[in-house]
Amino acid sequence: MPEGSNLTVGDLILEEVRKLTYRDLVSRIEHTVLRPNAGVEAVRRACMESIEHGFHGCCVPPWLVKEASEILSGTQVRVVTVAGFPLGNVPVKTKVFELREAAVQGAQEVDVVVNVSAVRSGMWDYVRDEVSELVDAAREVGCVLKLIVETSLLSDDEVRRLSGIAVDLGVDFIKTNTGFGPRGVTVHDVIVIKEATQGRARIKAAGGIRHVEDAVALIMAGADRIGTSSGVEIAREFTAYRQ
Amino acid sequence: MPEGSNLTVGDLILEEVRKLTYRDLVSRIEHTVLRPNAGVEAVRRACMESIEHGFHGCCVPPWLVKEASEILSGTQVRVVTVAGFPLGNVPVKTKVFELREAAVQGAQEVDVVVNVSAVRSGMWDYVRDEVSELVDAAREVGCVLKLIVETSLLSDDEVRRLSGIAVDLGVDFIKTNTGFGPRGVTVHDVIVIKEATQGRARIKAAGGIRHVEDAVALIMAGADRIGTSSGVEIAREFTAYRQ
Repeated sequence: MPEGSNLTVGDLILEEVRKLTYRDLVSRIEHTVLRPNAGVEAVRRACMESIEHGFHGCCVPPWLVKEASEILSGTQVRVVTVAGFPLGNVPVKTKVFELREAAVQGAQEVDVVVNVSAVRSGMWDYVRDEVSELVDAAREVGCVLKLIVETSLLSDDEVRRLSGIAVDLGVDFIKTNTGFGPRGVTVHDVIVIKEATQGRARIKAAGGIRHVEDAVALIMAGADRIGTSSGVEIAREFTAYRQ
Repeated sequence: MPEGSNLTVGDLILEEVRKLTYRDLVSRIEHTVLRPNAGVEAVRRACMESIEHGFHGCCVPPWLVKEASEILSGTQVRVVTVAGFPLGNVPVKTKVFELREAAVQGAQEVDVVVNVSAVRSGMWDYVRDEVSELVDAAREVGCVLKLIVETSLLSDDEVRRLSGIAVDLGVDFIKTNTGFGPRGVTVHDVIVIKEATQGRARIKAAGGIRHVEDAVALIMAGADRIGTSSGVEIAREFTAYRQ
C-alpha cells in the first residue's frame, strides 16, 4: 500500500466494478456446467440463462453439445465444450477426435487440457507436438482453441514455458484451470500467463470463481474471459453493487 | 453384534487377513497410477512394482498404455486403463474410440465411466445403448470391460438398476468408483452391487483404498478386484500382519 493511500485492494476492486458496464462483465462470462452429475435439465437451464443474461458462451459437457447448440442456435451465445477433460492424460489422437467430434456437434470453442504429466516429465517435444496437432485440428474445423494449463499442478516456470509454446503455435486462449484440480485460479496465475504471452493469446480464468469481486480482480489482472458455474449469481451481485 | 460374541468387526477382518494367502491378496490388486500430474517415471515404477509384487494388473493413464504394455509384456501383470474418465460425460463415440485405441496400444482391460448425467436424468434407454456399444466394442477388440458406476454420485436404486442393465448386456465387471468423485468406495457399495448382479458380473472396488484392513473388508463384502494406488503399502501391511 503506498504511503498516504487509504485505498484497500477491496476498494480498488469495487471502484473497478463501478467502472465496468453490465455488458463489459457478462460479455466475458462463459457460463459453465461440467459437474458429472448435472442432468440434462441443468444443462438446458444453463443455456437459457446464458441467453437471458447475454453471456459470451455456455460451456457444456461433450455429450450434450448438440443439445446446447440447438438451444443456442440463432443467439449470440457461443457453444463451448471441453476435451481431454479434466485430467489431460489421454493420447493426442483422442483429444483431436474429441475436438473434431465437438465441432461436428456444433461447438464453436473447445477448451482442451494439456498433457500435464508430459509437462511434469519435461517432455517438451511431446507437449509441443500435442499443442501443434490441436491447433491444426481447431483451424481445420474452425473452432476457437483454449489450452487449459492447470496451474494448480504446475510450477510458474512450467506455466510460463508452456504458455510461450502455446502462443508460438497459435493457440487462441490460455485457460488457467479445469476447476477439478487441487485449487482454483488465482490473480497470480493470470499475471504469470499475461507476462508470458505478451498479448499474443487471450486468457480465460476459470476454477472456483463464485463472486463478482473475484471475477473483477481476475479481469483487472488481465483475464479476457471468466469461466464459472456461478454466472447468474455473479451478474446478480454486479447489479446489486451498481444500485 | 450377536449376543455373547466378543468379536469386533476389526477382529473379524484380522481373522480374515490371517485366512488369506499373500497370493490371494495380490492377485486381486490392480495397482493404479492415474493422478494427472504423475510423471512417466511414476508410471514406469508402478509397472515394475506390479511385476515385483505379483499384482493382477497395473492401471495406467491412457496416453501411457503403450509404455506400460512394453514393460509388462511377457509377465503375468495385465495392462489396465480407463476411458471416459473420470467424468463419464463424453459421447458414446468417444468412449468407444478410447477403448479401441487403448486395445491397439496394448490394454487388456478397460475401465469405462458410465454416463452418470444420463443416469441421473433417468435416460435409461441412452444408458442401455451406451453400455451395449461398449460391450460390443470390448468383445471385438478382446478387452475385459469394467463399467465404473461412480456410486458416490448415484442413489442405491440407481446403482442397482444400472448394475442390472450392465450384467444383462454382458459387462465383465462393475467397478464402484473413479477415485475422483466426492468419496471413495464403501462396503455398502459392494454389497448393493453384489445383490444386484447375483454373481453374473465380477466387482472391482476402487476409490480411496489405502490400507489392508479396508481392502480385506471389501473383499469380504464381495469385491473380486481392488483398484488402488497404494498396492505396495497394502501388500506390506498384509505381510506385517502375518508375521
